Amino acid sequence: MKKLALISVSDKSSIVEFASELTKHEYGILATGKTAKTLLDNGVECTEISDFTSYPEIFSGRVKTLNPKIFGGILMRRDLEEDIRQAAENNITPIDIVCVNLYPFPQVVNRDDISLEVKIENIDIGGPSLIRAAAKNYKYVSVLTNPTQYDYFLDELNKGEISLETRSKLAAEAFSHTSMYDTIIANFFEQEFLDEPTAVRLNYKTAFQLRYGENPHQKATLFGDFSEYFEVLHGKELSYNNIIDLTAAVELVSEFDKTACAIIKHTNPCGAAVANSVSEAYEKALSGDPVSAFGGIVAFNKEVDAGTALKLNDIFLEIICAPSYSQEALDELKKKKNRRLILIKKYPDEDQRVIKSVPGGLLVQDKDNSKISDNLMKVVTEREPTQSEIEDLKFAWVVCKHTKSNAIVFVKDCKALGVGAGQMSRVDSAKIAAIKAKQFGHQLEGAVAASDAFFPFADGLIEIAKYGITSVIQPGGSVRDEEVINAANENNISMIFTGIRNFKH
Amino acid sequence: MKKLALISVSDKSSIVEFASELTKHEYGILATGKTAKTLLDNGVECTEISDFTSYPEIFSGRVKTLNPKIFGGILMRRDLEEDIRQAAENNITPIDIVCVNLYPFPQVVNRDDISLEVKIENIDIGGPSLIRAAAKNYKYVSVLTNPTQYDYFLDELNKGEISLETRSKLAAEAFSHTSMYDTIIANFFEQEFLDEPTAVRLNYKTAFQLRYGENPHQKATLFGDFSEYFEVLHGKELSYNNIIDLTAAVELVSEFDKTACAIIKHTNPCGAAVANSVSEAYEKALSGDPVSAFGGIVAFNKEVDAGTALKLNDIFLEIICAPSYSQEALDELKKKKNRRLILIKKYPDEDQRVIKSVPGGLLVQDKDNSKISDNLMKVVTEREPTQSEIEDLKFAWVVCKHTKSNAIVFVKDCKALGVGAGQMSRVDSAKIAAIKAKQFGHQLEGAVAASDAFFPFADGLIEIAKYGITSVIQPGGSVRDEEVINAANENNISMIFTGIRNFKH
Repeated sequence: MKKLALISVSDKSSIVEFASELTKHEYGILATGKTAKTLLDNGVECTEISDFTSYPEIFSGRVKTLNPKIFGGILMRRDLEEDIRQAAENNITPIDIVCVNLYPFPQVVNRDDISLEVKIENIDIGGPSLIRAAAKNYKYVSVLTNPTQYDYFLDELNKGEISLETRSKLAAEAFSHTSMYDTIIANFFEQEFLDEPTAVRLNYKTAFQLRYGENPHQKATLFGDFSEYFEVLHGKELSYNNIIDLTAAVELVSEFDKTACAIIKHTNPCGAAVANSVSEAYEKALSGDPVSAFGGIVAFNKEVDAGTALKLNDIFLEIICAPSYSQEALDELKKKKNRRLILIKKYPDEDQRVIKSVPGGLLVQDKDNSKISDNLMKVVTEREPTQSEIEDLKFAWVVCKHTKSNAIVFVKDCKALGVGAGQMSRVDSAKIAAIKAKQFGHQLEGAVAASDAFFPFADGLIEIAKYGITSVIQPGGSVRDEEVINAANENNISMIFTGIRNFKH
Repeated sequence: MKKLALISVSDKSSIVEFASELTKHEYGILATGKTAKTLLDNGVECTEISDFTSYPEIFSGRVKTLNPKIFGGILMRRDLEEDIRQAAENNITPIDIVCVNLYPFPQVVNRDDISLEVKIENIDIGGPSLIRAAAKNYKYVSVLTNPTQYDYFLDELNKGEISLETRSKLAAEAFSHTSMYDTIIANFFEQEFLDEPTAVRLNYKTAFQLRYGENPHQKATLFGDFSEYFEVLHGKELSYNNIIDLTAAVELVSEFDKTACAIIKHTNPCGAAVANSVSEAYEKALSGDPVSAFGGIVAFNKEVDAGTALKLNDIFLEIICAPSYSQEALDELKKKKNRRLILIKKYPDEDQRVIKSVPGGLLVQDKDNSKISDNLMKVVTEREPTQSEIEDLKFAWVVCKHTKSNAIVFVKDCKALGVGAGQMSRVDSAKIAAIKAKQFGHQLEGAVAASDAFFPFADGLIEIAKYGITSVIQPGGSVRDEEVINAANENNISMIFTGIRNFKH
């Protein structure tokens, strides 16, 4: 008697060639309705499952393979006497190859033009059952769930027989497939029918194995579709810290419509500016802290031209990111072998969830998508900010939002003059921002300041006033707001409350 | 004809009561072998599936429900003429309730005393097929996958009939269940049979909805078993930032065998010390930076006693964490209403994966489990560190490991004197650490320094030497290591290379 292979595929690519090869290896093919039609139309002999089981396909194909003759054939343990006896009694023939792929639920789930009913109809029931049964019985059965597996499977078959190793790998891929499929369905049902999520389910394919993680002794892997957002045009592959830093850099410049440049070190901006040209934006950003910029990550939100490329080549930068490069700029920038050039293909999504691991689980939160706008900016001081102060305050607010907490940022002419990042005390952040500004000869007289959270006491504001800062933007909301406002008034500082806190850790 | 309910449960808790109630509502019960036996033994009438299908359970129960009479009964669309006709032709009766729970694969997968073969046998094939079929057909069918659902289901049944809303919720829970089940299987097969992971699959149940995320405009949820590690003994529920900060604090103190205390603000230590008693450790840690400690998170690795509790009540602290508290200490600490008291039930696992979201996916890395030990500490300078310097260097190394990069930490007598955190330049981190130390009158003469990464130039080390630091610990590995070593020798500094970098972002 012939060995049997069961084929039931929604994605029919390469299926005729695959089935045809199997017949050459003396496999009899069992196939469900449409798959059988495709094979027969293309001259591949096969038996319809319904003929094999003597049971019709019913309910528009909802029930076709769910039959003990099929599942018995897949699940029987070939070397167990009891199973052999029961198989004989029930007229069950072993099925050694199961080639199944599923109704395309993942492709229809997010389409607005498809009704709930049709989406539900696209949930495959028989398919996952066949796949799971075959994978469970991998000791005897080969399960193929993806056309990409056909070639190497046939190669091995041509060399003799399918090894247990291959069957177990196929089984692993099979459960990977069904788990992904049900994760997508579960997320859909939950969103459709439950008031609140009952679980977080993440299922991302491996993108690539990184050389290491945050440090050389930590293993790390990138999962998912990062490459839909960023493409390495030139240079070595990205490291773990590169991925974090370039994301931070691009998030910052993506906030601006005007031409902007940000220079990032250890996820914090050490330079940032808005200007009329890419070249000017870079020069301004770099001049903020030209020392820390060494080895930094530079991001632009506009095309990099040849002139800017020449300037970028002056110092060692780890990464340059931009949404486009002129051909001349590319030629110039590619002269530096080790530096990575990144094309921003797509800006990070606003609806991305931010995930952080904690002992035993995960914290999942919305991304900080807050935006500053005129109607959120409430003047709380006697003096109103001038138009140029307002411009600088808005810019400072954005830079501060992208700086680790506690953060104080000093700005003049839409250029960061001093960034006080990641301190345990807000006064310290202010001091650091001032030290940094002085180090590079920046005049803080007439500059503005942004604070990522309210001043708990007046001391932070008094510190800032000492430097000659004339305007401040902060969320407000401290029980001591009045003291802080009084201190601002006493120093003729104009101050804006936004109501938006921007902690970032 | 009676309505039909199908029952096939691995977890038999409450099943007799549930089935018995269904019979009162005129349901006929179909049950698989062992479930049927349990019901009959307890006086609940039912029909064995094999009698209903006229097909035996075969292959040790591997095939029992996978029959078109069963799946037809579940999947038929009750109001479609064509389905009604086909059902009649094939002698199919609708099955309106499907109550199934699965072979306990998740409970056996990690047990060392169970063979691969037995684990594989615990993968349920029929069960998920029944559940998925019933969930797909939720318009007509109720699917129960957990004994916790029985009561409210019966309540609703007693009031009349099961609503579409309930059926759709049960379906959502059903797919949640199968997706979790296959995720666990897929992870197991991958680990068992593949050389490298092909995907990351995370499936955590909702623990609780947080009031908000890092900022009030961000929604956030905690997923998983955080409560296995930490218990809130007193005070308001934890916020997003609390969870992050207390984890950081506990991770730090968990590194020490001796009595240790850490005070955290914005995930960075603003105080840390090792001492002979909890009370002394707290005083030392607090004295490092008593200003920043305001509103901080304090963690201990030993029981908090009454004396320490009194001291803790002197200033406003957001959270106190310890592995235990004396009764007196608890009574004292509970006097402050708003402050949270946390019991450390279990320290964070070393094999935890650290997950970070990036555009389109996730970065997953090993936790930084590096430890400092004598054989990793290579003296590279002319002067060897003294015994007390070595003690301080080891302590400084741990504090530095838990400080955001770039990090420089000054230590004397196992107490942090100055923490320079999160800077874009290493020299700046050194300056900040020195400013902080001076602010609180700490003498840096004779103190030691730790750096989380190598000094790229000698300038950072020369900066440190100025303050009177006598010993330094750092990974080494810069192309300019020799310049740095020379600078240390010129300043009579003893220096140790560890080869371990500890970036933390």
